[in-house]
Amino acid sequence: MFRVTNFGESHGPAIGCVIDGCPPGMELSEADIQPDLDRRRPGTSRHVTQRNEADAVEILSGVYEGKTTGTPICLLIRNTDQRSKDYGNILQTFRPGHADYTYWHKYGIRDPRGGGRSSARLTAPTVAAAAVAKKWLKQQYGTTFRGCMTQLGEIAVPIEAWDEVPNNPFFAANARVIPELEAYMDSLRKAGDSVGARLHVEASGVPVGLGEPLYDKLDADIAHAMMGLNAVKGVEIGAGFACVAARGSQHGDELSPEGFGGNNAGGVLGGISSGQDITVSIAIKPTSSIRTPRASIDVAGQSTQVETFGRHDPCVGIRATPIAEALLALVVMDHALRHRAQCGDVRVGTPDIARQQVPGSAG
Amino acid sequence: MFRVTNFGESHGPAIGCVIDGCPPGMELSEADIQPDLDRRRPGTSRHVTQRNEADAVEILSGVYEGKTTGTPICLLIRNTDQRSKDYGNILQTFRPGHADYTYWHKYGIRDPRGGGRSSARLTAPTVAAAAVAKKWLKQQYGTTFRGCMTQLGEIAVPIEAWDEVPNNPFFAANARVIPELEAYMDSLRKAGDSVGARLHVEASGVPVGLGEPLYDKLDADIAHAMMGLNAVKGVEIGAGFACVAARGSQHGDELSPEGFGGNNAGGVLGGISSGQDITVSIAIKPTSSIRTPRASIDVAGQSTQVETFGRHDPCVGIRATPIAEALLALVVMDHALRHRAQCGDVRVGTPDIARQQVPGSAG
Amino acid sequence: MFRVTNFGESHGPAIGCVIDGCPPGMELSEADIQPDLDRRRPGTSRHVTQRNEADAVEILSGVYEGKTTGTPICLLIRNTDQRSKDYGNILQTFRPGHADYTYWHKYGIRDPRGGGRSSARLTAPTVAAAAVAKKWLKQQYGTTFRGCMTQLGEIAVPIEAWDEVPNNPFFAANARVIPELEAYMDSLRKAGDSVGARLHVEASGVPVGLGEPLYDKLDADIAHAMMGLNAVKGVEIGAGFACVAARGSQHGDELSPEGFGGNNAGGVLGGISSGQDITVSIAIKPTSSIRTPRASIDVAGQSTQVETFGRHDPCVGIRATPIAEALLALVVMDHALRHRAQCGDVRVGTPDIARQQVPGSAG
Amino acid sequence: MFRVTNFGESHGPAIGCVIDGCPPGMELSEADIQPDLDRRRPGTSRHVTQRNEADAVEILSGVYEGKTTGTPICLLIRNTDQRSKDYGNILQTFRPGHADYTYWHKYGIRDPRGGGRSSARLTAPTVAAAAVAKKWLKQQYGTTFRGCMTQLGEIAVPIEAWDEVPNNPFFAANARVIPELEAYMDSLRKAGDSVGARLHVEASGVPVGLGEPLYDKLDADIAHAMMGLNAVKGVEIGAGFACVAARGSQHGDELSPEGFGGNNAGGVLGGISSGQDITVSIAIKPTSSIRTPRASIDVAGQSTQVETFGRHDPCVGIRATPIAEALLALVVMDHALRHRAQCGDVRVGTPDIARQQVPGSAG
Repeated sequence: MFRVTNFGESHGPAIGCVIDGCPPGMELSEADIQPDLDRRRPGTSRHVTQRNEADAVEILSGVYEGKTTGTPICLLIRNTDQRSKDYGNILQTFRPGHADYTYWHKYGIRDPRGGGRSSARLTAPTVAAAAVAKKWLKQQYGTTFRGCMTQLGEIAVPIEAWDEVPNNPFFAANARVIPELEAYMDSLRKAGDSVGARLHVEASGVPVGLGEPLYDKLDADIAHAMMGLNAVKGVEIGAGFACVAARGSQHGDELSPEGFGGNNAGGVLGGISSGQDITVSIAIKPTSSIRTPRASIDVAGQSTQVETFGRHDPCVGIRATPIAEALLALVVMDHALRHRAQCGDVRVGTPDIARQQVPGSAG
Repeated sequence: MFRVTNFGESHGPAIGCVIDGCPPGMELSEADIQPDLDRRRPGTSRHVTQRNEADAVEILSGVYEGKTTGTPICLLIRNTDQRSKDYGNILQTFRPGHADYTYWHKYGIRDPRGGGRSSARLTAPTVAAAAVAKKWLKQQYGTTFRGCMTQLGEIAVPIEAWDEVPNNPFFAANARVIPELEAYMDSLRKAGDSVGARLHVEASGVPVGLGEPLYDKLDADIAHAMMGLNAVKGVEIGAGFACVAARGSQHGDELSPEGFGGNNAGGVLGGISSGQDITVSIAIKPTSSIRTPRASIDVAGQSTQVETFGRHDPCVGIRATPIAEALLALVVMDHALRHRAQCGDVRVGTPDIARQQVPGSAG
Repeated sequence: MFRVTNFGESHGPAIGCVIDGCPPGMELSEADIQPDLDRRRPGTSRHVTQRNEADAVEILSGVYEGKTTGTPICLLIRNTDQRSKDYGNILQTFRPGHADYTYWHKYGIRDPRGGGRSSARLTAPTVAAAAVAKKWLKQQYGTTFRGCMTQLGEIAVPIEAWDEVPNNPFFAANARVIPELEAYMDSLRKAGDSVGARLHVEASGVPVGLGEPLYDKLDADIAHAMMGLNAVKGVEIGAGFACVAARGSQHGDELSPEGFGGNNAGGVLGGISSGQDITVSIAIKPTSSIRTPRASIDVAGQSTQVETFGRHDPCVGIRATPIAEALLALVVMDHALRHRAQCGDVRVGTPDIARQQVPGSAG
Repeated sequence: MFRVTNFGESHGPAIGCVIDGCPPGMELSEADIQPDLDRRRPGTSRHVTQRNEADAVEILSGVYEGKTTGTPICLLIRNTDQRSKDYGNILQTFRPGHADYTYWHKYGIRDPRGGGRSSARLTAPTVAAAAVAKKWLKQQYGTTFRGCMTQLGEIAVPIEAWDEVPNNPFFAANARVIPELEAYMDSLRKAGDSVGARLHVEASGVPVGLGEPLYDKLDADIAHAMMGLNAVKGVEIGAGFACVAARGSQHGDELSPEGFGGNNAGGVLGGISSGQDITVSIAIKPTSSIRTPRASIDVAGQSTQVETFGRHDPCVGIRATPIAEALLALVVMDHALRHRAQCGDVRVGTPDIARQQVPGSAG
C-alpha cells in the first residue's frame, strides 16, 4: 500500500522515486529527508568511495503548502559527479562477482555507466522514501528505527553504546574498536582488496498485529527487502541461524504479565509483529570491484584479466546501515497501512489493544 | 505470473490452492503431483507427527483430457484426521514462540484448530502447486531441484551422497550419520523437547537471465519465499554469512571460457540468475509446541503454564526439505514467465544465449 | 485489498473462489450467501436455461464458530448437472460471437465443456463472494445495492416500483410491462434466436471519499468489473453517453447546503465517491449460442454451419442483474478497505466527515 | 507487465512517469515520443485552453546509447506556464462536477493548483509512455492505433476520411463538417459554456490471443483505462449499447475462410483479441469549469456561487483523441507481454498462428 517506484542509473542525469499511497495531511519538506540521505552519502570518509555527490533531494509532487496531499510524491536527486570514462576499460569484460554478466545475458545490452541499475547508488531514493515512512510511523505509533555494523571482516563489533553510531564512519555502536577498524580498512585499501560486513537493524515501538498469515508475512517481506539490497547474501530475524542448535524449551520466548522473557523471535511470530523489537541481521559480501587483477572472460567468451579503477567502496557494508534501516521502515510502513485496510486502525480497530497492556520486549 | 492462492486451515474440512497463469498444453494429472506430496506427508516415521493424512490431491479445474488449458488450476486436499479436541486445553493461553498471540491481537479472534492458518499443514498445497511448476521447468529448460538436511541440532550432516536422501526420514544426503540422528531424536522425544535444523536446497539447469534488477530480484524473491515458510528464521544464498569475513579477491567467482571458478554467489548476480546452480540454506527454529511446561499468559493477561499434547513434529525441519524445494521451484517458475514477458522466450529471445555456451557451475 | 480468486469450469466437478483480506470478526454462514446465489440460479423460469443446479455453497475455510477469522475464505459450489455430451457437435467448429475461436488461438487447446472458463456459470462464485462484501458494507456503513433490467431488446422497462423486482423473472422494477416481456421471450424462443438487454445497478449509502485519483479510480474499477462480465459491451456511469450532447451548465451537478441538485455524475467525481448513489448502466449482447444456423469455420479453416443445441439462456441479460450488483459491491468493498489503508477509517479518519453533513443524492 | 507510474500535478514544477518492464534493445529517443505529445498539447487552436506548454519530454533513465536497456524508463516534462493565481478565487468553494469536493473529503486537503492530480494535464505522461508502447507493438506485430472525434455536442461527425484527422483541431475524420464545428465552438465560448463529445479509437494488427479469460479480460482492461480518463462517463466496445436491441442471429459475427463477416464484437471475444480491429467508443462529459455562474457550497457548507476564470478547454473531448489512443496502446502492450509470459511469443509460441491465416476484419 506504500509503494515506492525507483528510477535512474548511477551515471545517468538523475535518480529518484515515486511514492504512492502516502497518508495525506502530514507535514513534509526536503528537510525531513535530507538528513537520512546525508548519512548514506558517499565521500564522507577515506573508507568509502570518493565520489562526491550532494544528494540534494527535490520534492516534485504530492506536497502542497508543506503537507502531503495523498497523491504521488516524486523525489528527485540529480547526479552531479558521474564520470563514465572511469568505466571505459571494462566495457568488453565481465567483472567477477558483478551483475555485468547476468544483465548482458538477460537484456542483451551493456550499460557500462557504473553498473547502471545495479549500482548501490540506487539506494539513495530508497533512503529518501523511507524518511517519509519513518516520519509517519513515528508520529502515528512512536515507531523508531536504528542500526549498526556488528562485524567487519573478521573483526566483531559488539553493540556497546548506541550513541556512538553517528560518531564514526562505520556506524559502529562501539568507540573502543574504531582504531582497529581504521587500521584494518587502511591496509585493505593499500592491498587493493575488499571485505564483507554484518549489520544489525531494529525497529522499536512497532504495533502488535502487523503482517499477514501466509502470503506476505512480515518477516518474509523483511527478508525480501534485505536480500534485495545490493551485495546482501544472508538475512536473519531474531536469533537467526543460532536457532538450528537451540531447543524449543529455550528458543520459544516465554510470556509473563510483564512482557516477553526474551526475543529470539526477533519481534515476529507466525509472520505477524508481536510488539517486541523487530531485530534483523544481514550479511554483505565484499565489494566485487577491486584493484586486484582477477581472471574473467570478455563478451566474446575469451580469457582476460579485470582490474577495476573506478571509485568504489572497499567495503560496501560500511555505508549500508542507513539503507538497511530504510528498508525495514518501508516494510513496516506498508504493513501498517495494510493492517488498517483489513482490520481498521491499530489504535481503535483491534479490540484488545485498547484494554490490554501490550507486553514490551524484555529481550 | 505463476500465482498460487492458498486456502484452508489445518483442522478445517479441506486445504488447497488455485494456480493462475500456468502455461497451456502441458500434460498433467494427479500422478504428477502426488509423489511430492507423499514426500512431505506426516506420519511416515516415528520422528515426525503421527497425524495420519493421505494428502490425496484432486484436480478440480484447469485440466482437460489430461492437458492444462491455461485457465486456473484448483488443487484440493481433503483433511481426514483433524482432531480439534487435542487443542481444547490451549484455547485460553498463548503458547510461547507460537502465532497464537499475534493472531489474537491482529484479528481479535482465536481459532484453536491446530493453529488455523499458521499450521505447517498449509504447505501441502504449496508442494502440490510446485509439482506443476517443476514439471514445466524440467520440460522447458531441463531445470531440476533437490534438497537435504545439513544440520540437526548440534549435529552437522555433510552432503556426501545425494542418492541417500530418499532412504532415510531426515532427508540426509549421508548414510553414515543416520544412527546418530535416530538416537538424537529418540532422546529428544523422550525429553519432550524440540530442536532446530538447517536445510540446503538447490536448483540446477536454471537459464541465465532470470530475475529483475531492482524490485523483485531473484534472490530477494527466494528469501521472501523461504522466510515465509513456517519456523524459518534465516536465509542464505550461496556462501551466505561466510561472506562477511571473506575478501573480494576470493569471494567474487572468477570466470573462464570453461565456466565459473566457484559459486560463492549461489547462482545469482545482481538479482539475476547466472546459469550456475542456485544454492540456498535456511535455518528452521525448534518446534514451539512441546510437552515441556513453559511460562506464559492467558487471554486475560494472567500468568499460566502451557504444555502441548497435540501430535507435533519434534523437529519441523525434518519434513521441510520438500517444501523448501517447492518454494524455490515456484520462484524460479514465476521468474521464467516474467522473463518471457519482457525479453521473449529464453531459448529464442535473448540474443546471446543461442551463440554462446552458458558456462556451467564448477562450484 | 478484498481479493477474490475464482476457479472452476462450467462442466468440471466444481467451481468456487477464495477471498483474501476479509475483515475478521464478522458473523458469516452459508445462509448469508445462499439467497444471492438463488437469485442468479438457472432453471427458475422458462425464460432462462433449464440447467438445474442447486448452487449450494459450502464455506471451506476462514470462518470459525460462525465468525470470519481474517484468513482466506474458500467458497465451493459443486456442479451437479453438467452434460458435456450436449457440446459434442461443436468440438470442431467455432461458434460465431463466442470465445471458442480466441481461446483456441491463445491456448492451442479446445475445452468444449460448456465454454470452460468463458461460461457465465463462473459468475456464481463472484455472487457468493460479493454476498460477504455486501454484509460487511451494510454493517459498517449502511451501504446497500440494488439493480434491475431497464430494456429487453426493443422494449424499454422504466423503473416504476423497486419492490416489483423479486416478483418477476426479469428483475423488472415494473409490473405493467411483464406480460409484454413474457410474450416477447416466448416468440424469441420459438424463433431460436436471442436478444440483448440493458441493466441498471446502484449503490446507496457509499461513504464519500472512496476511490483513487489516478490509477484505480472508482469508476474505472467499476467499468473494469462490468466490462469483465460475460457479454457486456458497454458501461455507463451516471448520465453516461447522454453527456455527449449535454452542456456544462446543466451536466455538472450543483451543490446546496441540502445536498446535490442532481446526479449526472453517478456518484463519482474525479474517480472518488461523492456520497451520492453510484449509478451504473450496462449493455449485454444477445446470447451467441442459438439454434438458428450460422456460417462459421472449423478448426481446419473450412466453411461450415453451426447450430447450438445446449441449454442456453435466450437472453443472458435476464439473470445478470444480481451479478452486476455483486460486481459493484466487490469494487466498493475493495475501495473501502483501500481507503482505510491510506486515510484511516472513514468514520474516524477523514476529519470533515464528522463535523459535516454529507449531502445525499437529490437525483 | 508494462507498468506506468505517473507523478506530478498540473501546477507543480514537473510531471512525468516511470515505465517498468519495457523490452530491452529497442531504439528510443525523445524524437519517438515528442510527436504524440505535440498532438495533445494545449494552446494549438482557439478552441482549446490557451495555456502554453512546450511539453518537451526528457528521458532520464533506461536508455543507453539510443537503446532501451530493459530497466525503468523515467520520462520528465517540466511545467512552464503554471499560473496558480488564476485559481485563487476558488479555494474556499467546490466547483460543480469537479473533483474538489471528493478530494477534500478523501484527503482533508485542498490543493487548488489547477485541480492538482485531477487535471487532464496528467495525461501528458500517459501519452509519452504510450509512444514507447506503440513503437514496440508496431515493430513486433505491425500493430497501429488511430482515433477521431465522432460527435461534438449534438453534431455527429461521421468517419469519412481518416487522413483529414491531422488537418483540423477537432481530430475529425471529416473535412465537410469542420466549419460547423468551428461555429459551434465559437458560440459556446461566447456563452461561457461547455459541451461533451464522443470519440472513437481503434487498434489494427493486434495479434489474436491477447487477453485473459476471467480476471483481466482485454475489454475489461480497456474499459478500466478509458473510464479512468478524466471526464469519461461511458465506454463501448464494438457495437456497444446497440447490442441491446440486436438479435443473436445478427450480432454474433459470422466466420468464413476469408475472415469475419462483421465486427460487432469490436475485436474481442471472451476477453481475448480475435485479430480483428479493436474498436472503442467513449463519452466525454462537458468541462465542469465554465464561466457561467453555478450554485454551490463553500468548505463551511454555506451556499455560494462559482464562476471559473482559469484557462480551460470548453470541450475537453477535443484534445482527448491522442490520449484515448495512448490508453488503448498501453492496454494492448501490457497484454502482449502477459501473453508472452504464459504462452510464449505470439510469433512462435501459439501453435496455430504460424500455420493458419488469421482472418482480418471485414467490418
